[in-house]
Amino acid sequence: MKLYDTKLAPNPRRVRIFMAEKGISCDTEQVDIVKGENLEESYLAVNPRGLLPALVLDDGTVLDESVAICRYLEETHPEPPLMGTGALGKAQVEARQRHMEFDGLLGAAEAFRNGFPLFSSRGLAGTAGPVDAIPALVERGTATVLRFYRGLDEDLANSTFVAGDDFTIADITALCTVDFAVGAARVPIPDDCGNLKRWHAEVSARPSAAA
Amino acid sequence: MKLYDTKLAPNPRRVRIFMAEKGISCDTEQVDIVKGENLEESYLAVNPRGLLPALVLDDGTVLDESVAICRYLEETHPEPPLMGTGALGKAQVEARQRHMEFDGLLGAAEAFRNGFPLFSSRGLAGTAGPVDAIPALVERGTATVLRFYRGLDEDLANSTFVAGDDFTIADITALCTVDFAVGAARVPIPDDCGNLKRWHAEVSARPSAAA
Repeated sequence: MKLYDTKLAPNPRRVRIFMAEKGISCDTEQVDIVKGENLEESYLAVNPRGLLPALVLDDGTVLDESVAICRYLEETHPEPPLMGTGALGKAQVEARQRHMEFDGLLGAAEAFRNGFPLFSSRGLAGTAGPVDAIPALVERGTATVLRFYRGLDEDLANSTFVAGDDFTIADITALCTVDFAVGAARVPIPDDCGNLKRWHAEVSARPSAAA
Repeated sequence: MKLYDTKLAPNPRRVRIFMAEKGISCDTEQVDIVKGENLEESYLAVNPRGLLPALVLDDGTVLDESVAICRYLEETHPEPPLMGTGALGKAQVEARQRHMEFDGLLGAAEAFRNGFPLFSSRGLAGTAGPVDAIPALVERGTATVLRFYRGLDEDLANSTFVAGDDFTIADITALCTVDFAVGAARVPIPDDCGNLKRWHAEVSARPSAAA
Protein backbone atom coordinates (compact mmCIF):
# COMPACT_ATOMS: atom_id res chain seq x y z
CA MET A 1 0.00 0.00 0.00
CA LYS A 2 1.04 3.60 -0.52
CA LEU A 3 -0.52 6.65 1.12
CA TYR A 4 -0.52 10.02 -0.63
CA ASP A 5 -0.37 12.45 2.24
CA THR A 6 -0.01 16.12 3.08
CA LYS A 7 1.13 17.24 6.49
CA LEU A 8 -0.89 20.45 6.76
CA ALA A 9 -4.40 19.20 6.15
CA PRO A 10 -6.74 17.51 8.62
CA ASN A 11 -8.09 14.70 6.43
CA PRO A 12 -4.77 12.93 5.76
CA ARG A 13 -3.94 13.21 9.45
CA ARG A 14 -7.14 11.34 10.27
CA VAL A 15 -5.84 8.40 8.23
CA ARG A 16 -2.32 8.62 9.69
CA ILE A 17 -3.68 8.49 13.26
CA PHE A 18 -6.08 5.68 12.36
CA MET A 19 -3.18 3.66 10.94
CA ALA A 20 -0.96 4.37 13.94
CA GLU A 21 -3.69 3.16 16.33
CA LYS A 22 -3.92 -0.07 14.30
CA GLY A 23 -0.16 -0.48 14.06
CA ILE A 24 -0.28 -0.26 10.25
CA SER A 25 2.54 1.35 8.30
CA CYS A 26 3.08 1.83 4.58
CA ASP A 27 4.99 3.94 2.08
CA THR A 28 3.90 7.56 1.95
CA GLU A 29 4.41 10.42 -0.46
CA GLN A 30 3.94 14.07 0.45
CA VAL A 31 1.86 16.27 -1.88
CA ASP A 32 2.08 20.01 -1.16
CA ILE A 33 -1.44 21.43 -1.43
CA VAL A 34 -0.40 25.03 -0.75
CA LYS A 35 1.87 24.87 -3.79
CA GLY A 36 -0.99 23.21 -5.68
CA GLU A 37 0.85 19.93 -6.31
CA ASN A 38 -2.48 18.16 -5.79
CA LEU A 39 -3.73 19.80 -8.98
CA GLU A 40 -0.73 18.79 -11.10
CA GLU A 41 -0.95 16.04 -13.71
CA SER A 42 1.19 13.61 -11.74
CA TYR A 43 -1.19 13.59 -8.78
CA LEU A 44 -4.37 13.85 -10.84
CA ALA A 45 -3.25 10.62 -12.51
CA VAL A 46 -3.51 8.99 -9.06
CA ASN A 47 -6.63 10.81 -7.88
CA PRO A 48 -8.54 12.76 -10.53
CA ARG A 49 -10.49 14.49 -7.77
CA GLY A 50 -7.29 16.27 -6.69
CA LEU A 51 -7.89 15.69 -2.99
CA LEU A 52 -5.79 14.17 -0.24
CA PRO A 53 -5.40 11.56 1.13
CA ALA A 54 -5.45 8.69 -1.34
CA LEU A 55 -4.47 5.11 -0.55
CA VAL A 56 -3.21 2.95 -3.40
CA LEU A 57 -3.60 -0.77 -2.72
CA ASP A 58 -1.06 -3.32 -3.91
CA ASP A 59 -3.22 -4.21 -6.91
CA GLY A 60 -3.40 -0.54 -7.95
CA THR A 61 -6.92 0.12 -6.66
CA VAL A 62 -7.18 3.69 -5.36
CA LEU A 63 -9.29 4.66 -2.36
CA ASP A 64 -9.69 8.43 -2.55
CA GLU A 65 -11.64 9.36 0.57
CA SER A 66 -10.46 9.48 4.18
CA VAL A 67 -13.30 7.70 5.98
CA ALA A 68 -13.56 5.10 3.21
CA ILE A 69 -9.84 4.40 3.68
CA CYS A 70 -10.46 3.96 7.40
CA ARG A 71 -13.37 1.61 6.65
CA TYR A 72 -11.10 -0.54 4.47
CA LEU A 73 -8.44 -0.67 7.18
CA GLU A 74 -11.04 -1.44 9.87
CA GLU A 75 -12.29 -4.39 7.83
CA THR A 76 -8.83 -5.71 6.99
CA HIS A 77 -7.26 -4.97 10.42
CA PRO A 78 -10.15 -5.30 12.89
CA GLU A 79 -8.07 -4.87 16.07
CA PRO A 80 -8.39 -2.61 17.93
CA PRO A 81 -11.87 -1.70 16.68
CA LEU A 82 -12.07 2.03 15.95
CA MET A 83 -15.46 2.16 14.19
CA GLY A 84 -17.63 0.51 16.84
CA THR A 85 -18.77 -3.05 17.44
CA GLY A 86 -22.24 -4.53 17.02
CA ALA A 87 -25.05 -2.94 15.04
CA LEU A 88 -25.83 -0.22 17.56
CA GLY A 89 -22.20 0.43 18.46
CA LYS A 90 -21.21 0.87 14.82
CA ALA A 91 -24.15 3.22 14.24
CA GLN A 92 -23.39 5.31 17.32
CA VAL A 93 -19.73 5.73 16.42
CA GLU A 94 -20.69 6.66 12.86
CA ALA A 95 -23.16 9.23 14.17
CA ARG A 96 -20.54 10.82 16.42
CA GLN A 97 -17.90 10.73 13.71
CA ARG A 98 -20.26 12.56 11.40
CA HIS A 99 -21.24 15.07 14.08
CA MET A 100 -17.55 15.96 14.36
CA GLU A 101 -17.34 16.50 10.61
CA PHE A 102 -20.56 18.40 10.01
CA ASP A 103 -20.63 20.38 13.27
CA GLY A 104 -16.90 21.07 13.49
CA LEU A 105 -14.60 20.25 10.60
CA LEU A 106 -16.72 21.93 7.93
CA GLY A 107 -16.83 25.13 10.00
CA ALA A 108 -13.09 25.08 10.63
CA ALA A 109 -12.45 24.52 6.94
CA GLU A 110 -14.66 27.43 5.87
CA ALA A 111 -13.08 29.73 8.47
CA PHE A 112 -9.57 28.80 7.31
CA ARG A 113 -10.05 28.50 3.59
CA ASN A 114 -11.87 31.80 3.09
CA GLY A 115 -9.34 33.78 5.10
CA PHE A 116 -6.08 32.22 3.88
CA PRO A 117 -4.53 34.63 1.34
CA LEU A 118 -3.03 31.91 -0.85
CA PHE A 119 -6.50 30.36 -1.29
CA SER A 120 -8.23 33.62 -2.28
CA SER A 121 -9.30 32.03 -5.57
CA ARG A 122 -9.41 28.45 -4.23
CA GLY A 123 -12.56 28.77 -2.13
CA LEU A 124 -13.35 25.10 -2.63
CA ALA A 125 -10.91 22.19 -2.37
CA GLY A 126 -9.92 20.00 -5.28
CA THR A 127 -10.62 20.49 -8.95
CA ALA A 128 -13.50 22.99 -8.69
CA GLY A 129 -11.33 25.52 -10.51
CA PRO A 130 -11.13 29.19 -9.56
CA VAL A 131 -13.72 29.85 -6.85
CA ASP A 132 -13.57 33.17 -5.00
CA ALA A 133 -13.22 33.01 -1.23
CA ILE A 134 -16.27 34.42 0.59
CA PRO A 135 -15.04 36.57 3.49
CA ALA A 136 -18.37 36.23 5.38
CA LEU A 137 -17.60 32.54 5.80
CA VAL A 138 -14.63 33.34 8.05
CA GLU A 139 -16.98 34.85 10.61
CA ARG A 140 -19.64 32.15 10.16
CA GLY A 141 -17.07 29.35 10.36
CA THR A 142 -15.45 30.83 13.46
CA ALA A 143 -18.84 30.99 15.18
CA THR A 144 -19.51 27.38 14.14
CA VAL A 145 -16.19 26.26 15.63
CA LEU A 146 -16.98 28.02 18.92
CA ARG A 147 -20.40 26.31 19.07
CA PHE A 148 -18.65 23.03 18.29
CA TYR A 149 -16.17 23.54 21.14
CA ARG A 150 -18.96 24.30 23.62
CA GLY A 151 -21.13 21.39 22.47
CA LEU A 152 -18.24 18.96 22.68
CA ASP A 153 -17.26 20.33 26.08
CA GLU A 154 -20.78 19.55 27.33
CA ASP A 155 -20.72 16.07 25.80
CA LEU A 156 -17.36 15.30 27.40
CA ALA A 157 -18.66 16.16 30.88
CA ASN A 158 -20.22 12.70 30.98
CA SER A 159 -18.06 10.73 28.59
CA THR A 160 -14.40 9.72 28.51
CA PHE A 161 -14.24 9.81 24.73
CA VAL A 162 -16.36 11.39 22.00
CA ALA A 163 -18.46 8.29 21.37
CA GLY A 164 -18.41 6.83 24.89
CA ASP A 165 -15.94 4.73 26.84
CA ASP A 166 -13.68 3.77 23.96
CA PHE A 167 -11.29 5.71 21.74
CA THR A 168 -12.74 5.64 18.20
CA ILE A 169 -12.60 7.34 14.83
CA ALA A 170 -14.88 9.99 16.33
CA ASP A 171 -12.00 11.04 18.60
CA ILE A 172 -9.64 11.06 15.64
CA THR A 173 -11.92 13.36 13.63
CA ALA A 174 -12.46 15.56 16.67
CA LEU A 175 -8.75 15.82 17.44
CA CYS A 176 -7.86 16.69 13.84
CA THR A 177 -10.69 19.23 13.78
CA VAL A 178 -9.65 20.93 17.02
CA ASP A 179 -5.96 21.08 16.09
CA PHE A 180 -6.82 22.42 12.63
CA ALA A 181 -9.28 24.95 14.06
CA VAL A 182 -6.71 26.17 16.60
CA GLY A 183 -3.65 26.06 14.37
CA ALA A 184 -4.98 26.99 10.94
CA ALA A 185 -8.32 28.73 11.49
CA ARG A 186 -6.93 30.48 14.60
CA VAL A 187 -9.88 29.77 16.90
CA PRO A 188 -8.52 28.98 20.37
CA ILE A 189 -10.37 26.70 22.79
CA PRO A 190 -12.15 28.93 25.34
CA ASP A 191 -10.60 28.78 28.80
CA ASP A 192 -13.81 27.61 30.43
CA CYS A 193 -14.08 24.46 28.26
CA GLY A 194 -12.45 22.26 30.91
CA ASN A 195 -13.87 18.96 29.72
CA LEU A 196 -12.74 19.60 26.18
CA LYS A 197 -9.26 20.54 27.42
CA ARG A 198 -9.06 17.38 29.57
CA TRP A 199 -10.02 15.21 26.61
CA HIS A 200 -7.70 17.10 24.24
CA ALA A 201 -4.74 16.59 26.56
CA GLU A 202 -5.51 12.87 26.87
CA VAL A 203 -5.88 12.12 23.18
CA SER A 204 -2.91 14.33 22.30
CA ALA A 205 -0.75 12.25 24.65
CA ARG A 206 -1.44 9.04 22.72
CA PRO A 207 1.52 8.10 20.50
CA SER A 208 -0.79 8.09 17.46
CA ALA A 209 -1.36 11.85 17.79
CA ALA A 210 2.17 12.45 16.53
CA ALA A 211 1.42 10.60 13.28
CA MET B 1 -39.01 1.73 16.07
CA LYS B 2 -40.28 5.19 15.22
CA LEU B 3 -38.92 7.53 12.57
CA TYR B 4 -39.16 11.29 12.97
CA ASP B 5 -39.42 12.48 9.42
CA THR B 6 -40.00 15.57 7.30
CA LYS B 7 -41.19 15.29 3.74
CA LEU B 8 -39.37 18.30 2.28
CA ALA B 9 -35.78 17.60 3.26
CA PRO B 10 -33.32 15.26 1.55
CA ASN B 11 -31.82 13.54 4.62
CA PRO B 12 -35.02 11.94 5.92
CA ARG B 13 -35.83 10.79 2.39
CA ARG B 14 -32.50 8.96 2.27
CA VAL B 15 -33.62 6.89 5.25
CA ARG B 16 -37.13 6.34 3.86
CA ILE B 17 -35.73 5.02 0.57
CA PHE B 18 -33.16 2.88 2.40
CA MET B 19 -35.93 1.33 4.50
CA ALA B 20 -38.15 0.75 1.48
CA GLU B 21 -35.32 -1.06 -0.34
CA LYS B 22 -34.90 -3.30 2.72
CA GLY B 23 -38.65 -3.85 3.15
CA ILE B 24 -38.59 -2.25 6.60
CA SER B 25 -41.53 -0.21 7.87
CA CYS B 26 -42.14 1.55 11.16
CA ASP B 27 -44.23 4.30 12.74
CA THR B 28 -43.38 7.78 11.53
CA GLU B 29 -44.12 11.28 12.73
CA GLN B 30 -43.85 14.37 10.55
CA VAL B 31 -41.95 17.39 11.89
CA ASP B 32 -42.41 20.60 9.85
CA ILE B 33 -39.00 22.24 9.55
CA VAL B 34 -40.26 25.27 7.61
CA LYS B 35 -42.56 26.08 10.53
CA GLY B 36 -39.62 25.42 12.86
CA GLU B 37 -41.24 22.49 14.67
CA ASN B 38 -37.80 20.88 14.80
CA LEU B 39 -36.70 23.64 17.16
CA GLU B 40 -39.65 23.29 19.54
CA GLU B 41 -39.28 21.68 22.96
CA SER B 42 -41.24 18.58 22.05
CA TYR B 43 -38.83 17.63 19.26
CA LEU B 44 -35.69 18.83 21.03
CA ALA B 45 -36.63 16.36 23.79
CA VAL B 46 -36.22 13.61 21.17
CA ASN B 47 -33.20 15.06 19.37
CA PRO B 48 -31.45 17.98 21.10
CA ARG B 49 -29.59 18.70 17.86
CA GLY B 50 -32.89 19.74 16.25
CA LEU B 51 -32.19 17.90 13.01
CA LEU B 52 -34.15 15.34 11.01
CA PRO B 53 -34.36 12.38 10.69
CA ALA B 54 -34.15 10.64 14.06
CA LEU B 55 -34.89 6.96 14.64
CA VAL B 56 -36.04 5.91 18.10
CA LEU B 57 -35.41 2.23 18.82
CA ASP B 58 -37.79 0.13 20.89
CA ASP B 59 -35.63 0.55 23.99
CA GLY B 60 -35.68 4.34 23.61
CA THR B 61 -32.20 4.71 22.13
CA VAL B 62 -32.15 7.58 19.61
CA LEU B 63 -30.07 7.51 16.44
CA ASP B 64 -29.92 11.11 15.23
CA GLU B 65 -27.99 10.95 11.97
CA SER B 66 -29.14 9.68 8.58
CA VAL B 67 -26.17 7.55 7.52
CA ALA B 68 -25.77 6.17 11.05
CA ILE B 69 -29.44 5.10 10.90
CA CYS B 70 -28.73 3.38 7.59
CA ARG B 71 -25.68 1.67 9.11
CA TYR B 72 -27.84 0.31 11.96
CA LEU B 73 -30.45 -0.97 9.51
CA GLU B 74 -27.76 -2.51 7.26
CA GLU B 75 -26.35 -4.42 10.21
CA THR B 76 -29.73 -5.57 11.51
CA HIS B 77 -31.31 -6.23 8.09
CA PRO B 78 -28.38 -7.25 5.86
CA GLU B 79 -30.44 -8.13 2.76
CA PRO B 80 -30.24 -6.71 0.23
CA PRO B 81 -26.85 -5.18 1.01
CA LEU B 82 -26.88 -1.42 0.32
CA MET B 83 -23.53 -0.44 1.85
CA GLY B 84 -21.24 -2.80 -0.03
CA THR B 85 -19.86 -6.25 0.71
CA GLY B 86 -16.32 -7.25 1.59
CA ALA B 87 -13.63 -4.87 2.83
CA LEU B 88 -13.00 -3.21 -0.52
CA GLY B 89 -16.66 -3.18 -1.56
CA LYS B 90 -17.72 -1.50 1.67
CA ALA B 91 -14.96 1.08 1.32
CA GLN B 92 -15.80 1.84 -2.30
CA VAL B 93 -19.50 2.32 -1.57
CA GLU B 94 -18.64 4.55 1.39
CA ALA B 95 -16.33 6.63 -0.79
CA ARG B 96 -19.01 7.11 -3.43
CA GLN B 97 -21.69 7.85 -0.85
CA ARG B 98 -19.47 10.55 0.61
CA HIS B 99 -18.63 11.96 -2.81
CA MET B 100 -22.36 12.44 -3.36
CA GLU B 101 -22.65 14.30 -0.05
CA PHE B 102 -19.58 16.49 -0.23
CA ASP B 103 -19.60 17.14 -3.98
CA GLY B 104 -23.36 17.47 -4.39
CA LEU B 105 -25.64 17.60 -1.39
CA LEU B 106 -23.67 20.28 0.46
CA GLY B 107 -23.74 22.50 -2.61
CA ALA B 108 -27.46 21.98 -3.16
CA ALA B 109 -28.11 22.76 0.49
CA GLU B 110 -26.10 25.99 0.40
CA ALA B 111 -27.79 27.08 -2.83
CA PHE B 112 -31.25 26.42 -1.38
CA ARG B 113 -30.82 27.52 2.21
CA ASN B 114 -29.19 30.88 1.44
CA GLY B 115 -31.83 31.84 -1.11
CA PHE B 116 -35.00 30.62 0.62
CA PRO B 117 -36.74 33.69 2.11
CA LEU B 118 -38.08 31.85 5.17
CA PHE B 119 -34.53 30.81 6.10
CA SER B 120 -33.02 34.31 5.82
CA SER B 121 -31.90 34.11 9.44
CA ARG B 122 -31.53 30.29 9.49
CA GLY B 123 -28.39 30.03 7.38
CA LEU B 124 -27.37 26.84 9.17
CA ALA B 125 -29.60 23.89 10.02
CA GLY B 126 -30.50 22.86 13.55
CA THR B 127 -29.86 24.71 16.79
CA ALA B 128 -27.16 27.11 15.60
CA GLY B 129 -29.50 29.99 16.40
CA PRO B 130 -29.93 33.03 14.17
CA VAL B 131 -27.36 32.85 11.36
CA ASP B 132 -27.70 35.24 8.43
CA ALA B 133 -28.00 33.70 5.01
CA ILE B 134 -25.03 34.53 2.75
CA PRO B 135 -26.35 35.39 -0.72
CA ALA B 136 -22.99 34.61 -2.39
CA LEU B 137 -23.51 30.97 -1.43
CA VAL B 138 -26.50 30.70 -3.78
CA GLU B 139 -24.22 31.31 -6.74
CA ARG B 140 -21.40 29.14 -5.36
CA GLY B 141 -23.78 26.30 -4.50
CA THR B 142 -25.45 26.45 -7.91
CA ALA B 143 -22.05 26.19 -9.60
CA THR B 144 -21.17 23.26 -7.33
CA VAL B 145 -24.38 21.47 -8.29
CA LEU B 146 -23.67 21.95 -11.98
CA ARG B 147 -20.14 20.53 -11.55
CA PHE B 148 -21.68 17.65 -9.61
CA TYR B 149 -24.15 16.93 -12.42
CA ARG B 150 -21.39 16.92 -15.02
CA GLY B 151 -19.05 14.77 -12.92
CA LEU B 152 -21.77 12.23 -12.20
CA ASP B 153 -22.78 12.21 -15.85
CA GLU B 154 -19.20 11.26 -16.78
CA ASP B 155 -19.06 8.57 -14.09
CA LEU B 156 -22.34 7.06 -15.25
CA ALA B 157 -21.06 6.67 -18.81
CA ASN B 158 -19.30 3.52 -17.67
CA SER B 159 -21.35 2.42 -14.71
CA THR B 160 -24.94 1.29 -14.22
CA PHE B 161 -25.13 2.74 -10.73
CA VAL B 162 -23.16 5.34 -8.78
CA ALA B 163 -20.87 2.82 -7.10
CA GLY B 164 -20.77 0.18 -9.85
CA ASP B 165 -23.09 -2.65 -10.87
CA ASP B 166 -25.32 -2.64 -7.79
CA PHE B 167 -27.86 -0.18 -6.42
CA THR B 168 -26.46 1.14 -3.11
CA ILE B 169 -26.74 3.93 -0.59
CA ALA B 170 -24.62 6.02 -2.97
CA ASP B 171 -27.53 5.97 -5.45
CA ILE B 172 -29.93 6.91 -2.67
CA THR B 173 -27.83 9.93 -1.67
CA ALA B 174 -27.38 10.90 -5.30
CA LEU B 175 -31.11 10.63 -6.07
CA CYS B 176 -32.09 12.68 -3.03
CA THR B 177 -29.43 15.24 -3.93
CA VAL B 178 -30.54 15.58 -7.56
CA ASP B 179 -34.24 15.82 -6.70
CA PHE B 180 -33.52 18.38 -3.97
CA ALA B 181 -31.21 20.36 -6.24
CA VAL B 182 -33.82 20.41 -9.03
CA GLY B 183 -36.90 20.93 -6.87
CA ALA B 184 -35.66 23.12 -4.03
CA ALA B 185 -32.44 24.76 -5.22
CA ARG B 186 -33.91 25.14 -8.74
CA VAL B 187 -30.89 23.84 -10.66
CA PRO B 188 -32.15 21.75 -13.58
CA ILE B 189 -30.12 18.88 -15.03
CA PRO B 190 -28.45 20.14 -18.23
CA ASP B 191 -29.95 18.64 -21.38
CA ASP B 192 -26.64 17.16 -22.51
CA CYS B 193 -26.20 15.04 -19.35
CA GLY B 194 -27.65 11.95 -21.00
CA ASN B 195 -26.03 9.39 -18.71
CA LEU B 196 -27.25 11.20 -15.64
CA LYS B 197 -30.76 11.40 -17.09
CA ARG B 198 -30.73 7.67 -17.94
CA TRP B 199 -29.67 6.78 -14.38
CA HIS B 200 -32.14 9.26 -12.85
CA ALA B 201 -35.04 7.75 -14.79
CA GLU B 202 -34.03 4.23 -13.73
CA VAL B 203 -33.63 4.89 -10.01
CA SER B 204 -36.76 7.08 -9.98
CA ALA B 205 -38.76 4.16 -11.38
CA ARG B 206 -37.87 1.92 -8.42
CA PRO B 207 -40.80 1.66 -5.97
CA SER B 208 -38.53 2.91 -3.17
CA ALA B 209 -38.20 6.32 -4.85
CA ALA B 210 -41.78 7.11 -3.85
CA ALA B 211 -40.95 6.61 -0.16
